[in-house]
Amino acid sequence: MSGLIAPVAARAREAAVVLALATRATKDAALEAMAVALLANTAAILAANADDIVAAAADGTPEHLLDRLRLDADRVAGMAQGLREVAGLPDPIGTVLRGSTLANGLELRQVSVPFGVVGVIYEARPNVTADAAGICLKSGNAVLLRGSSSALNSNRAIIEVLRSAAAGAGVPADVIQLVPGEGHEAVKELMRARGLVDVLIPRGGAGLIRSVVEESTVPVIETGVGNCHVYVDAEADLEMALAIVLNSKTHRTSVCNSAESLLVHEAVAAEFLPKVVAALRAADVTIHGDEAFGAYDGVEKATEEDWDTEYLSLDISAAVVPDLSSAIAHIRAHSSGHTEAIVTGSQAAARRFTAEVDAAAVMVNASTRFTDGGEFGFGAEIGISTQKLHARGPLGLPEMTSTKYVVTGDGHTR
Amino acid sequence: MSGLIAPVAARAREAAVVLALATRATKDAALEAMAVALLANTAAILAANADDIVAAAADGTPEHLLDRLRLDADRVAGMAQGLREVAGLPDPIGTVLRGSTLANGLELRQVSVPFGVVGVIYEARPNVTADAAGICLKSGNAVLLRGSSSALNSNRAIIEVLRSAAAGAGVPADVIQLVPGEGHEAVKELMRARGLVDVLIPRGGAGLIRSVVEESTVPVIETGVGNCHVYVDAEADLEMALAIVLNSKTHRTSVCNSAESLLVHEAVAAEFLPKVVAALRAADVTIHGDEAFGAYDGVEKATEEDWDTEYLSLDISAAVVPDLSSAIAHIRAHSSGHTEAIVTGSQAAARRFTAEVDAAAVMVNASTRFTDGGEFGFGAEIGISTQKLHARGPLGLPEMTSTKYVVTGDGHTR
Repeated sequence: MSGLIAPVAARAREAAVVLALATRATKDAALEAMAVALLANTAAILAANADDIVAAAADGTPEHLLDRLRLDADRVAGMAQGLREVAGLPDPIGTVLRGSTLANGLELRQVSVPFGVVGVIYEARPNVTADAAGICLKSGNAVLLRGSSSALNSNRAIIEVLRSAAAGAGVPADVIQLVPGEGHEAVKELMRARGLVDVLIPRGGAGLIRSVVEESTVPVIETGVGNCHVYVDAEADLEMALAIVLNSKTHRTSVCNSAESLLVHEAVAAEFLPKVVAALRAADVTIHGDEAFGAYDGVEKATEEDWDTEYLSLDISAAVVPDLSSAIAHIRAHSSGHTEAIVTGSQAAARRFTAEVDAAAVMVNASTRFTDGGEFGFGAEIGISTQKLHARGPLGLPEMTSTKYVVTGDGHTR
Repeated sequence: MSGLIAPVAARAREAAVVLALATRATKDAALEAMAVALLANTAAILAANADDIVAAAADGTPEHLLDRLRLDADRVAGMAQGLREVAGLPDPIGTVLRGSTLANGLELRQVSVPFGVVGVIYEARPNVTADAAGICLKSGNAVLLRGSSSALNSNRAIIEVLRSAAAGAGVPADVIQLVPGEGHEAVKELMRARGLVDVLIPRGGAGLIRSVVEESTVPVIETGVGNCHVYVDAEADLEMALAIVLNSKTHRTSVCNSAESLLVHEAVAAEFLPKVVAALRAADVTIHGDEAFGAYDGVEKATEEDWDTEYLSLDISAAVVPDLSSAIAHIRAHSSGHTEAIVTGSQAAARRFTAEVDAAAVMVNASTRFTDGGEFGFGAEIGISTQKLHARGPLGLPEMTSTKYVVTGDGHTR
C-alpha cells in the first residue's frame, strides 16, 4: 500500500467512529445543511463543471456523454432535493432486527450498525457524488468517492461544499472525501485497502464492474449489468405483452433495467410477431432476431453474441421458444441476474417462472423498468445489486448497514 | 480455468436448480436418510478414517491434531444427530422477508432463496463434512467440500454415504460433492470460479482464511479469527468478573470465541489483579502482562505482538487501562471483530461499550464463549462470520440464503 489511500482511509475511519454514534437529528441536520449549501454554491459548482465540459469537449467527447457530465441549476437543485429526501427517510441504524431471551436468561439483540468506510467508484454523472454522500451519511458510513476523471473539477467542487456544510452541522468533514490521484493507481490501492475500507460499490459499465470484482480484496457489492428478458407466454394477453415489451425496451434505453431480449412462445408467434416487429420498428428499435423473427422485414440476424449483449440502446434480441421450459433455460443461460419478466394469464406459468428464474427481480405482467429503489418505495438507492451476497436488487438505506449482536447477562458463564 | 473445478461446479449448478425447488418435506427426508446411512455405514467410515490416522501418524502429526482427525462410533453418531437436528429446523427458503402493495398497485414480495452453489474449505475435523453438507442441503444450496488432505479418505467415505442416501431420497447426489485433486491447484481454481460458485466459506486457521480472502474472486464469507477481549470496568462486580474471565479463557481454548486478552480498569487493579493472576495461574494459564501485571509472580512480559495474538491456548495477554475510553481504544486497535466483553455494574459504561465497540458480538456481563450458533438458539451453524457484508456472527440457516424480489402486476408500465 503506497501513500495515496492509507491516510485518506485512516481519516475516514476516525470520522466514521463519530458518525456511527450520531443521532438521526444530527444526521438529518447535516443533510439539510448540505442541501442548502449546494443551492447557495450553485454558481461555483457550475463554474467548475464548465471547466470539465470544456476539457471533455476539447478531447472530442461525444455529445451524449457531455450531456451526462453537464450540470445546470436544475440538476444542482435536484441534488439538493435528493439530500432532503434522504433526510426524510427513517434512520436505518439502531434497528433491532432480531431479539430474544435465551433459555439461560441471556438477552440477545441483533442491531443494525454502519459498515464503517464505504468506497464508491463511479463514472460520469457528477450528481452521483451528492447522492452517494447523502445515502452514506444517513446510514452512518464514511464515504470515499472516486468519480470519473472527466468530472474531477465538478466532483471536487461538490465535495468541498458538502464537507464544509456537514462540518458546520457537527458531523466530521472527513465522512465525505474524494479519493486523491487521477490515474488508475489510486483505484488499485482502494481495491486492495482491506481492513481500511469495509465495502466497495462500483457503479458504471460492465468493464469497470468486472475489474473491481476481479481485483478487489475489499468486499464488493456488484451492481448494475442488466441483460433483462421479457418472455411472452402462450397464455399472454397480447395487447398487455406489446405494451410491456415496448415500455421495457424504449422507456429509457441507457439504464440497467431496460429489456435487452424478447422471447415469444411459438403458440402465439404467428399472431404476436407481426405486431411486435411493427411496433418496435416504429419506435426505431433494431431487432436482432432468430429465424422466426428473421421472416419479417427489417429484422437483422442475431449472432450468438447478441443473446448475451446488454445493448443499452435501441436494440433488442428476439427469439421464438417452443415452451416455458425453453424460455427458462434460455434465460438461465444468458441472464445477468438483474430483472426477468413474464407476461402470462396462467397462474401455473407465473408460479413456475418466478420459482425457477434466478434473478434479483422477477416481474409478472409488469415492465422490467420497475426494478428501481424509487419505484420499490425505498426513497433512495445507491445502485442495484446483481450479486447474491448481502443484498440483491435495489440498494436502499437498510442495505447499507451491517449488524452487531448485543448480548446482556448477569454473570453468565458456560 | 483448467479442468478440475468446472465440470464439478457445472454438475453442482444443475443439481442446485432441482434442490432449490425441493419442498421442506423432501429435504428433511433426505437429511433423515443421510443420518440413517451414516449410522449404517459406521464401520466403513471408521475404516477409511483409520487409513487417514495411520498415514498422519506416520507423517509425525502431533497427538492433538490426530485427535481432531480421529472418528469413533460416538463421533459418527454425533454427525447423524447433527443432520437430524438440521431436519428439525424451519426451512429458511421461501420466507417472505418484506412485502407491500405499491401505490400503483404492483405487489412486491422479497423472498428468501438459496445462493446456488457454496464452496466450503476447511481443515482437519471430518465431522465438518457432514455438518456443512446438512446445512447446505437444508438451505437449498449445492455444496463443494474441500477438507484437509489428511482427512481425504474419511471425507471421501462420508461424502459417498451422504450422496447415495440423498439420491435415494429424491435429491440429486451432486448437491454434495468433494472437490477433486489433492494439491493447492484445485483450491486455487475454486477461488477463481466466479460465476460457477456463488459463495465461498473458509473455515480454519488465520492463514487459510487470509489466503482465501486475498485470492478469491468468488464472494467470500470470512469466518473465525477471534482475538476476543474481556474488559473489567471500574464498577464491575469482581467476583462476577473473575468467573467470566476464567470461563472465557479456559472453558475451551482452541475455539475462536475464547478470550485472548484481559483489560482491567486501574481503579480496581489493586484489588482484582492479585485474584485474577492467582486464579489464571491455578488454571495453568500463562499471562503475558503489561507493567502493572508484571508486578506479580509468574507473569511474562507482553510484547507488542501479544496484543494482536489469537493464542488458542492457555495464554492470555493482560493490561491495566486508565479508563473506559482507553479500553475501547485498545480494543478498536487490536480486535478481530469477533466478540468483546465488558463486566460492569454501570449502565452508562455498558451503553458506551456496546455502542462504540465494533464487533460481531458484544457481551455485557457474560462470557465471550456465548457467541455460538447453538448458544444463540440457531440450532446449527456453519461458522462465525467476522466480516460486515451479508452476515456477521454465527451463520445459521437464514444466513445461508439470498433473496429475490417477485413483483406482480396486471400490465403495469412506467
